[in-house]
Formats: sequence, structure tokens, C-alpha cells
Amino acid sequence: MFVYLNGEYIPEENARISPDDRGFLFSDGIYEVIRSYDGILFEPEAHLARLRYGAKALRFNETGFDFLPHVASELIQRNGLESGDATVYIQVTRGAAPRTHRFPAKNTPLTIYISARRFNPHHSEQERGIAAILVPDQRWARCDIKSTGLLPNVLANQQAVDAGAFEALFVRDGILMEGSHSNVFAVSKGEVITPPLSNYILGGITREVVLELCRKLGIPHREGIILFSEIPGMEEIMIVGTTVEVTPVRQILNVNFQNRDPGPLTRRLQEGFRERVRSGAAGIQAS
Amino acid sequence: MFVYLNGEYIPEENARISPDDRGFLFSDGIYEVIRSYDGILFEPEAHLARLRYGAKALRFNETGFDFLPHVASELIQRNGLESGDATVYIQVTRGAAPRTHRFPAKNTPLTIYISARRFNPHHSEQERGIAAILVPDQRWARCDIKSTGLLPNVLANQQAVDAGAFEALFVRDGILMEGSHSNVFAVSKGEVITPPLSNYILGGITREVVLELCRKLGIPHREGIILFSEIPGMEEIMIVGTTVEVTPVRQILNVNFQNRDPGPLTRRLQEGFRERVRSGAAGIQAS
Repeated sequence: MFVYLNGEYIPEENARISPDDRGFLFSDGIYEVIRSYDGILFEPEAHLARLRYGAKALRFNETGFDFLPHVASELIQRNGLESGDATVYIQVTRGAAPRTHRFPAKNTPLTIYISARRFNPHHSEQERGIAAILVPDQRWARCDIKSTGLLPNVLANQQAVDAGAFEALFVRDGILMEGSHSNVFAVSKGEVITPPLSNYILGGITREVVLELCRKLGIPHREGIILFSEIPGMEEIMIVGTTVEVTPVRQILNVNFQNRDPGPLTRRLQEGFRERVRSGAAGIQAS
Repeated sequence: MFVYLNGEYIPEENARISPDDRGFLFSDGIYEVIRSYDGILFEPEAHLARLRYGAKALRFNETGFDFLPHVASELIQRNGLESGDATVYIQVTRGAAPRTHRFPAKNTPLTIYISARRFNPHHSEQERGIAAILVPDQRWARCDIKSTGLLPNVLANQQAVDAGAFEALFVRDGILMEGSHSNVFAVSKGEVITPPLSNYILGGITREVVLELCRKLGIPHREGIILFSEIPGMEEIMIVGTTVEVTPVRQILNVNFQNRDPGPLTRRLQEGFRERVRSGAAGIQAS
């Protein structure tokens, strides 16, 4: 498998980074995961825009990254991923420098690492629905930055796995925020609701696509707070994201939301999402 | 310079880690910085205990690390650091594995990286006192784990540097917590106060030594909350830590705590700390 590291396409086993990389020492980095459907990247410009947003928020010395979609497509091709499902992983860190908290010298080159791998879609989860758990949100206060500081997400996700669940949903101050690697949507009185953008959730690309689908399909929807106490009364709950796409939540193990067959709005959004993928809208073909 | 990586002593330039290391991808790691004075490690057992605490909290598949003080001493020697000041940096991550949030296969070996470097003590800062700023505490809710998820600390520290200050002090919910790479002590009505241990601050080794010094020297002291609003009224403020030792805070730029010459209790604690170092108590000699 070929990966891209700092300007070069190299075999994966040759890709090595310095232990002085600030991504390793300080989680001083950001990342993106882009889905590829039959060699077509899904919403690459939206991912690029979010990466730029993070790079600006962290004051990286480079924030353009215009070449990344090309590199992503090149890796799809070099790794024989032009058909079927794949994901492209992009990580950018503030580079390698002697360890000190403050930013390193301005001319320190960023580290840019990109890989592309085969992905096994979650078909059965999307069909049947998944189990989730609610966990206290212990993350930092800038969840809008897609940083590699993912330790709380790792711990929450493992807690879900230990409980026999697929995803952990974060609750902060009594408010449902998002999953450990997904955004969350719910349906109440026939209306689709998702938590509003803030410093406590990531501005998900799939979240944006699903909101667009609601508009296009004429589904009543709004961005709004979902209280912990309102969860059992929700008619449908789903998680959305680059890997899970639109996946129904069948049960939340530690609250009274049990044995819920995927609801009609979840099904409409799943179908709308699949059509959007098939149409290749906003995607770019591997060159 | 020699470093230690996964069982081997190798030249620094040969030390390379996989981009699939969970330390790089997820900040799924912990670290320690141990001070060496003329080849004698300061409080190595306390650092080891804290590393074990973190490894247990994160459920690493190894939590002993008995050999680490030996490796640290070996690196001091191999790098010719037996005299003068040095620091030993230890980082342990959950190892390299294909990227997925949940823990990797149980037999995935941890990554253990250790380096030892010359350190330039902050003499003038300790003599004259430093400037600090107060910043909102945006870190996660498990600051008691010394994880490599340090991006909020990096941003806070850089904010201090930009303001012409040496350290950023975190305030959470109106309460003074600690610095971006230090604990904080203050003096009120002749009594030394430091924030109590909780999930919001790191259990600092130097913090513990300073509390011990208070007991030994008969200085009135307690662990207690310091409100944001109480800061201007403090008689003395100091930061303590492995690299800063005991350093007076001369001014806090964004609050009314200005032009304070280092006070008598700060000076007594600095002297007590230096004596403790000179006595080599609890240290171990490089073998």
C-alpha cells in the first residue's frame, strides 16, 4: 500500500515519523476522513474547508492545502481502490521540533500524512440499527476543531464496545451533543432535530448533507437542543457521519430508548443519502 | 544523542515511529518529564507511580514499567549528562495498529519512547519572577491523567508567549486550577494555598514536594479553592513544576496582580527546594 508523507508517495512500511513530531508529543494536529465511492471522493471540498478552518484556528503556518484532493485521488488510484468503498485519511500536524509547549520556529514544515484504505461499509448496522450508550462528555471545549486529541473519544468508544454497543453519545450539562465519531439526529413530532453548531460539536460534513436532504425532501427539520430527559420520547434517533453514513439507533442501553425499529424519516434520509452518493454530486473522480 | 525506543538504545536520528501509532492518531498516550541534577534523577519513583496511574486509568495492557528509571539513568550516562541539568522525557502510547477508535488487539505492544537532554534552568525567572496570564480552562475533564492530549495547553502557552508572559494559568468556572505546564501556589494571610487534587488538575510531583516542605518548615498551608476574584488579594503567587521548580509570579497581565517582588514564603520554599535537591533525597544516581 502506498501512502503520502510530506510530498512523497511511499510504501506504507517506509512511512515513519519523528517522535519529536508535535502530533505525537502534543496532539498538535488535525485530521479528516473522506469517503470514496467507486473512486469518487465524497464532498472533498467540504472536508478541505473544515481542514482549513482547523488549521486557521490552530494558527498553522500553512492553511491552503489545495493539493490534498489531488493526492487523495492519486492514492485511490495507486492502491487500486477505484471501485468499491474506501476511506482517505488525512492528518496535518504542526511538524517536528524540539519539545516545548509554545509554537516552534515559524519555518517548521507541517507534517502531512495521507493514506487510502479499503473500507467495509456497515450494511447490517444501517439495516437493523445499532445500540448506543450515553456517556458524560469529558472532551475539551473546542470540539468544533477536528483535532487528533481524541483520547476522550477513544475511551468513550471503548466503553460502548465493552457494553456491547456500537457508539457512545456524549451528554454535556444534560444536553445531547454528538457521538464519539458521528453526529446525532432525532425525530420529535415528525420533525428532524440535530444539535446546533457550537464549540461543543463538530460541524460534520454528513450532518450538513442530511440537513440539505431534509430541505430538498421537504422534511420538517431544525437545529435545536435535545435534552437528556427528552431522549426516551424521541420517535427516531440516528447517527450520521463519513463512515456510518445514516445509521439508525435501535436502542440506547442506559436509558429508556429500546427496541426501536428504524423509523420512516430515518429510512427516507438513508435512501436520499444513497441517491446523493449515486449521483456523485459534489464528488470528484480519481484522476 | 541516544534515545530509547521500544527496547533499544538508538541514535536520535534513527528513532522513527509509525504514523499508525495511536499516540500520533489519537493522543492515546501518557508521558512524564523527570529532572536530573548532576546525574541524579529527582523523585523517579513518584514519576513512575504517576505513569502507572495513567496507564491504569487508560487501561493499557502493561502498567508496570519497573525498568524505566534504569533506562532513564542509562540515557543520562550515554548522553554525557552526568553533570549539570538535564530532563528525561518518557512517553508511552497504546502502540501502532490500524486506525479505529476502540482499543486495538490486546497483544498490541505499547510504544515506549525515552530521551534525555541538556536543560537550561530558569535562573532569572526564579530570581525575578515571571509574568503570567489567566486563560479559560478549555481542557478535558481528566486533567489528572498526564496524557499527550496537550493541544489546549499548547494554545494557552502560546497565548501567554504572545502576551509577553511565561505561563498561562487556567481558570475553570471561576476557580484557579493550574498552569499550562505547572501547578500553582498562592499565599493568603501568611498561609500557603494550592488547589486540591481533582479531575481538573494534575497531581504534580513538585506540588507534592512543596507541600512536604511546608510541613517540614512549619509553614501554614492548606489545599483549598482559589477563586478568580481572590487572585488580586493574594500576597504571593508562585508556579511549581519539574522544569520551573519554584518560580515566583511577578505579575498577572490581565488581572490586578502587578509588580510583586517575590515574597518571603516563596523565597523560603525556593531555598527549601534547592536544599532538597542538593541532599539528593529520594533521587537515584545514574548507574
